[in-house]
Amino acid sequence: MSDAAAYELYAYWRTSATYRVRVALALKGLGAEERFVDVDKGENRSPEFLKINPMGGLPAFVVKDGGAVLTQSLAILDYLEETHPEPALLPADALGRARVRSLAQMLAADTHPLITPRVRKYLAAEGGFTPDAWKSWQRHWFTTGLQAFEARLAADRETGRFCHGDQVTIADICLASITAVMKVFDINVAGIPTVERILAECEAMPAFAAADPFLQTGAPERAA
Amino acid sequence: MSDAAAYELYAYWRTSATYRVRVALALKGLGAEERFVDVDKGENRSPEFLKINPMGGLPAFVVKDGGAVLTQSLAILDYLEETHPEPALLPADALGRARVRSLAQMLAADTHPLITPRVRKYLAAEGGFTPDAWKSWQRHWFTTGLQAFEARLAADRETGRFCHGDQVTIADICLASITAVMKVFDINVAGIPTVERILAECEAMPAFAAADPFLQTGAPERAA
Repeated sequence: MSDAAAYELYAYWRTSATYRVRVALALKGLGAEERFVDVDKGENRSPEFLKINPMGGLPAFVVKDGGAVLTQSLAILDYLEETHPEPALLPADALGRARVRSLAQMLAADTHPLITPRVRKYLAAEGGFTPDAWKSWQRHWFTTGLQAFEARLAADRETGRFCHGDQVTIADICLASITAVMKVFDINVAGIPTVERILAECEAMPAFAAADPFLQTGAPERAA
Repeated sequence: MSDAAAYELYAYWRTSATYRVRVALALKGLGAEERFVDVDKGENRSPEFLKINPMGGLPAFVVKDGGAVLTQSLAILDYLEETHPEPALLPADALGRARVRSLAQMLAADTHPLITPRVRKYLAAEGGFTPDAWKSWQRHWFTTGLQAFEARLAADRETGRFCHGDQVTIADICLASITAVMKVFDINVAGIPTVERILAECEAMPAFAAADPFLQTGAPERAA
């Protein structure tokens, strides 16, 4: 597609934040050339990559016309929304936009940063966390985040077929990005029926299905 | 001021996310009635407060006309920007907005969530973290976040008197919100001259000065 050459996406197969950008690009009919960065081999800490993103995080999103490097998935999603408004991934009204952004940030800001590789490394090296302790940590924050998310979805009259009404928004993208990573780590959370209903709607859409971490470059074979 | 009655802000004296909303309101000439929630006494986990924000986080921002409850500080800042565009806290161009949002999220999403009370409680209870281990954890993430932030500010030609050009943006607000909390916990980070220069500009502005955690309801006497 003609837009494929407009962007580069520095990516790793299982990173939740990269998943969000892949889905948003697909929903808006855009493409990007992916550049594989092997986080497990530490390539995101290489001098070359740190020149692109000093934070060492993925994704990094390059707008080839001008060479700007965008980082932070929610900032990239806002950029795509502002430069390619259709289909809209935010509601039209300010209160609705605030609700969707809040839902997105509950997961992208309050939940996901706690279970990233840099946190795992610190807890293993400095906190003596065993793999089991790390798994409990992951499960705790996924559960806390998703159960709070469920409570809001269940309580709010704005919840519809998706997190906000009947159109996909960045809240759905962030939700699916979290559960995609939970599948990678084989973690389940109970008691989230609204979340599960909405995820089934998302997974039926090609844009979400194609972003499945196990379909990306560098992914292992999916466990049977 | 007439706008004071338009909003309620559920707040605690030292929470970084509440600081951001206080500054944005002041910069835009708006006010809010503050409702004190004592996090140290667990009032943010009370059934009453969980009805307002099931995540148990602060701030919660109530738009009294209609009763909508907004959560997540960056979503609240976007709401204020959309409903009260002047003075603008985001640049006019999409690439500039993406850069400012990315800078803001480096601190508000990648740094601050790691040092919140709920994380401290988990690490103390489940990870055996002593107060010293917690202090090292705090220092590590503040240092990591601010040094990466400094690297971007120092490298980017868009950096000006403030983080992005010569006008205050949400990036400056998030930066000041992090260092305000560091002062509360008496943590310093070395090697961040650009950050320090910009913070001095912010602290000279009444909107930032008035948001100082030690000036808020419930704050202890400042250490001499």
